Amino acid sequence: MVNVGIIGASGFTGAELLRLLPAHPDLNVKLVTADSQAGVAVADLYPNLAAAYGDMAFERLDLDNVAQQVDGLDLIFMGLPHGASQLIVPQIRGKVGHIIDMGADFRLDDEALYPEWYGEPHQAPELLGDFVYGLPELFRSDIAGAELVAAPGCYVTTATLTLAPLVKAGLLEPQGIVVDAACGVTGSGRGAKAGNTFCAVDENFAAYGLMRHRHTPEMQMAIGRHAGTEVQLLFTPHLLPANRGILATCYARPTAGTNSESLMAALHAAYDAEPFVVVSERSPSTKAAMGSNTAHLTAMVDDRTGWAICLGALDNLTKGSSGQAIQCANLALGLAETIGLPTVGVAP
Amino acid sequence: MVNVGIIGASGFTGAELLRLLPAHPDLNVKLVTADSQAGVAVADLYPNLAAAYGDMAFERLDLDNVAQQVDGLDLIFMGLPHGASQLIVPQIRGKVGHIIDMGADFRLDDEALYPEWYGEPHQAPELLGDFVYGLPELFRSDIAGAELVAAPGCYVTTATLTLAPLVKAGLLEPQGIVVDAACGVTGSGRGAKAGNTFCAVDENFAAYGLMRHRHTPEMQMAIGRHAGTEVQLLFTPHLLPANRGILATCYARPTAGTNSESLMAALHAAYDAEPFVVVSERSPSTKAAMGSNTAHLTAMVDDRTGWAICLGALDNLTKGSSGQAIQCANLALGLAETIGLPTVGVAP
Amino acid sequence: MVNVGIIGASGFTGAELLRLLPAHPDLNVKLVTADSQAGVAVADLYPNLAAAYGDMAFERLDLDNVAQQVDGLDLIFMGLPHGASQLIVPQIRGKVGHIIDMGADFRLDDEALYPEWYGEPHQAPELLGDFVYGLPELFRSDIAGAELVAAPGCYVTTATLTLAPLVKAGLLEPQGIVVDAACGVTGSGRGAKAGNTFCAVDENFAAYGLMRHRHTPEMQMAIGRHAGTEVQLLFTPHLLPANRGILATCYARPTAGTNSESLMAALHAAYDAEPFVVVSERSPSTKAAMGSNTAHLTAMVDDRTGWAICLGALDNLTKGSSGQAIQCANLALGLAETIGLPTVGVAP
Amino acid sequence: MVNVGIIGASGFTGAELLRLLPAHPDLNVKLVTADSQAGVAVADLYPNLAAAYGDMAFERLDLDNVAQQVDGLDLIFMGLPHGASQLIVPQIRGKVGHIIDMGADFRLDDEALYPEWYGEPHQAPELLGDFVYGLPELFRSDIAGAELVAAPGCYVTTATLTLAPLVKAGLLEPQGIVVDAACGVTGSGRGAKAGNTFCAVDENFAAYGLMRHRHTPEMQMAIGRHAGTEVQLLFTPHLLPANRGILATCYARPTAGTNSESLMAALHAAYDAEPFVVVSERSPSTKAAMGSNTAHLTAMVDDRTGWAICLGALDNLTKGSSGQAIQCANLALGLAETIGLPTVGVAP
Repeated sequence: MVNVGIIGASGFTGAELLRLLPAHPDLNVKLVTADSQAGVAVADLYPNLAAAYGDMAFERLDLDNVAQQVDGLDLIFMGLPHGASQLIVPQIRGKVGHIIDMGADFRLDDEALYPEWYGEPHQAPELLGDFVYGLPELFRSDIAGAELVAAPGCYVTTATLTLAPLVKAGLLEPQGIVVDAACGVTGSGRGAKAGNTFCAVDENFAAYGLMRHRHTPEMQMAIGRHAGTEVQLLFTPHLLPANRGILATCYARPTAGTNSESLMAALHAAYDAEPFVVVSERSPSTKAAMGSNTAHLTAMVDDRTGWAICLGALDNLTKGSSGQAIQCANLALGLAETIGLPTVGVAP
Repeated sequence: MVNVGIIGASGFTGAELLRLLPAHPDLNVKLVTADSQAGVAVADLYPNLAAAYGDMAFERLDLDNVAQQVDGLDLIFMGLPHGASQLIVPQIRGKVGHIIDMGADFRLDDEALYPEWYGEPHQAPELLGDFVYGLPELFRSDIAGAELVAAPGCYVTTATLTLAPLVKAGLLEPQGIVVDAACGVTGSGRGAKAGNTFCAVDENFAAYGLMRHRHTPEMQMAIGRHAGTEVQLLFTPHLLPANRGILATCYARPTAGTNSESLMAALHAAYDAEPFVVVSERSPSTKAAMGSNTAHLTAMVDDRTGWAICLGALDNLTKGSSGQAIQCANLALGLAETIGLPTVGVAP
Repeated sequence: MVNVGIIGASGFTGAELLRLLPAHPDLNVKLVTADSQAGVAVADLYPNLAAAYGDMAFERLDLDNVAQQVDGLDLIFMGLPHGASQLIVPQIRGKVGHIIDMGADFRLDDEALYPEWYGEPHQAPELLGDFVYGLPELFRSDIAGAELVAAPGCYVTTATLTLAPLVKAGLLEPQGIVVDAACGVTGSGRGAKAGNTFCAVDENFAAYGLMRHRHTPEMQMAIGRHAGTEVQLLFTPHLLPANRGILATCYARPTAGTNSESLMAALHAAYDAEPFVVVSERSPSTKAAMGSNTAHLTAMVDDRTGWAICLGALDNLTKGSSGQAIQCANLALGLAETIGLPTVGVAP
Repeated sequence: MVNVGIIGASGFTGAELLRLLPAHPDLNVKLVTADSQAGVAVADLYPNLAAAYGDMAFERLDLDNVAQQVDGLDLIFMGLPHGASQLIVPQIRGKVGHIIDMGADFRLDDEALYPEWYGEPHQAPELLGDFVYGLPELFRSDIAGAELVAAPGCYVTTATLTLAPLVKAGLLEPQGIVVDAACGVTGSGRGAKAGNTFCAVDENFAAYGLMRHRHTPEMQMAIGRHAGTEVQLLFTPHLLPANRGILATCYARPTAGTNSESLMAALHAAYDAEPFVVVSERSPSTKAAMGSNTAHLTAMVDDRTGWAICLGALDNLTKGSSGQAIQCANLALGLAETIGLPTVGVAP
């Protein structure tokens, strides 16, 4: 058994790990930390977990003795607000075998992007190069056996899985892409704020973070790295009145000769052997992915207007976060990549 | 008092007229037809209307004696499935003072577009030129006093109000525009079908009608007519898990010199005097428009990628259909344009 | 014109007044106070109101000079958290013609119930007897011309309209009644808290406030006062994944000879002349009432088990709060009771 | 491996079996029949299942050669509309080892209840006595090794798990019980009808089937059989604007000496060893159960009014149908009862 700790376990990505891990035969949760919820039983904060976690309670992270607190753990998942991992990873690195960070702290390879898009300089830039990027379908060999993994989040995973193979195949122009996306409210986290109350979201639909959403440069980086070219895109997120699910509707200019068939062929070539990607002619729907680690993709060219339309859907908490983190953990640990991860969605 | 008939009153656009008309002091509903619901009390099909319509019941439209059935009516609203108005208007034209059609049968000026986008030739092409296009903010003078009005629907109204003044002002390139939009489920009508059941839509989000949605040529026509130029655009609708509301997130290439300020200035210039349009820096939300006849608009240029982003939101059943039809009726009848129409939305 | 102030205008009951008042020809909003939102434009907090309120902004209530701040106002609506009205009413009473309080501070006639159910003694018990109870259908003559009105809230209005005429007619036993009810999330107010976030409520259903909900004694008082008897009931509220709407499903023991016909006859006798009550055989639905000031009621006896089932539905923010407050204001001012109030619901 | 067939696989209970079975190591789906969807790929009707079912398509049930069609199967699940199993079971009994029926055809032990509550006489009454009742927590020994199992549905499972141990312990009067319940829209099946369209349900709440819901006598039978007494109850279902989930809020008269502590003690005694039941002081919520096979229960006595309030929540498609059917299949086959069944819910 692999002894696992979750630092930042009370947020939605932590809760999703706790939901998934009972089905994993090899990972054994030994430590769950959550400062604001320290002392609270897992079952009281998340009654959906009551049957599996008995009396387990969240513990406070002891920043002065983190190394001691994680002693004996083989792998740590981190589900913290942006900025927090930068302070903790330097303390625990080397004390545990593997760290899978679900936040953005170690995803960008260019240190300069942090002040530009996150508003503050990185606190541990020397570690940026030590993390591998945890998107298994595109960077699997980097992740196998890795010590430090920065797993991408929901928007980036969706856009990158959808677009990267097509750009890499030279079928789409890498500049001027539009990623128009919508994500369920779990994407905004557990904390109550004016913008995520039921009455603010229910029966509503609006764009947010216009032109300046933080995940824009990461999309450009991830697609560009896979494709081996510079990518520039505009990203427009919308808040969807749903708990989970993300859909990216992407518009790009096809290169000469690209048509619907060549786009689909490239998606099939990239993903037909992947256990967590479904490529089909169906218009991807968020509900098909609900609760699963599966992404659903399609693409086509509109001959009339000369646009390529590429769509991808997945569950933002599973393939878009915690499911992907477990997939990375499996790879890092040398386990079968699919262990413990559902491929079918909870619908209807 | 103006005696009003609603032909096709049991569908959602008919029901929305019935919801709005009790607040209108000058329009008096005398006839409501609905073949599939003939004999059913309005209050039984729509309990929300019970307090205003007492024992009024839907009647069957007598196609052999339509002229007699509408005798004495001053104005008729038509809320029929596509194709039906083409058969009825020739029979009742001239028998009543004004006909406001909420369907698409008489919106397109080019007869050839019907077989191309609707799959069948038009049955009364000689009447196409007699209808004026019922979008008051852009074609008000055409509608004043008009006998025959074809009022545009939700997607077209939203995209056209958002984009037309900007294209007309020469701020946006008229080609290569993307209209990425989402609409609540009332947009798919009252009839039960697999795609509009609760379990198909709730907690779901997906695109539909990819590349071939029928309202595409109408958007191009309406924006182009107002702007005096040829417009080409790609329209991608999505089904929103909400009863009402439509949001269009539009992407276009700004012309040289266009910036966020000039876009906003053009919107303010076009709409500040309009009672049913709100232009602001806020990201438009469907919920702000819910139940009202008001459209909410904004626009900006992303200097980094060189895209203009133009957003518009409204209630698909009100400003996107029945409210707009009443606005047109007011104009056609020479009444004050705002009578009987709410400007504030029902939120939260 | 009647000059109106709203003290506590930024909460949901205040916002609902602001939504309804543009349709009222005689009430003119001159002052909107909201301490936490002082300085914020009404249109920024509630974009649905943008078309009607221009640049109007919330003001801070100046507790040291309240009398001066309300100078010139004819009528004040109060939409404050429990306890706040008790402190303010003594300062403004007599400075304005009428005060309509939408909170619970002056609803109970028995001072001793406040510490028992609200956890603290009343701060102005000498005023309790000066307020009339603002449920027009049952206590209309008390409200006509009244200076001080305490309008009941959503749960109490629903249960009381449903049960009071039946208990008064001697058709139901006044003891052992169960009021099992569900209310949309607007009932929990605008402030963000763990329990009203989207992800806590959406796709969820649970009871809360079991056995001890504060509105229990008020239901007993209101039904009992109208019926002239002592009433004892158990009230179980549930949180409904919807913005608005309240449904009460009530169970009571019929007295000897009571049957479905006598229950319906009593409801018809009580309400057929009422503009805001619909009695029918239909099972009342919250959506029928949405956005309207109308309550929908029915009742029946199950011969098999000997239970009477009495159901009522209304919009918790309209008939259950702000619409009712305007109805009371109309009565207090001597205006027609229905002015400015919608009877039809916004559906679908 | 156990070869499994699902007759009636395209409905929601069939789809839920298909969702759950990929996680079951011993059950192998070999046949899925669905007449209205014959020839359709599972993945096209249910895209959430695409990653697990490849090209598997629904087959037409050949009523003339059913025995041949099921040849080689060890176990059959039946997910048919009421009445259909009565015609098929006589043909396949003995041809397969085990039949688990998820419909109501073989649940009632009293043949006379079928015409009274279902409107028509039973077609195979001689088989009623051969089926065991598939509620494992209360009738486990009957199910172990059973050939024919009639698994109860959502409402009955919820009410019975909540009330039966308390009635059996003599803590509640078995007469005059009220079961007030709400269920998500999956409870009404996959077929599109006016009552389950999105716009009919969303933002709505209403009771249905008042006094005459078909599952009433089954609740009385199941509770009464476990408790060894005659039970009479009134059942009032409501339609919840959610995909899944059922909550029963039950009211009963406590016997002398019963208090909250004795109710909770009885629930703990009955269920603390059960893997799929959580007893706690928390108010049960449907969301906690979502997608899991777990029921959440609590109970209390209100000393003021003398009512016992007993609440239970579960997922109507999992523990309320297909999860329970798999639990029964495990017992019938002699496998570990919990194999393949999730205990944690998908939340948020």
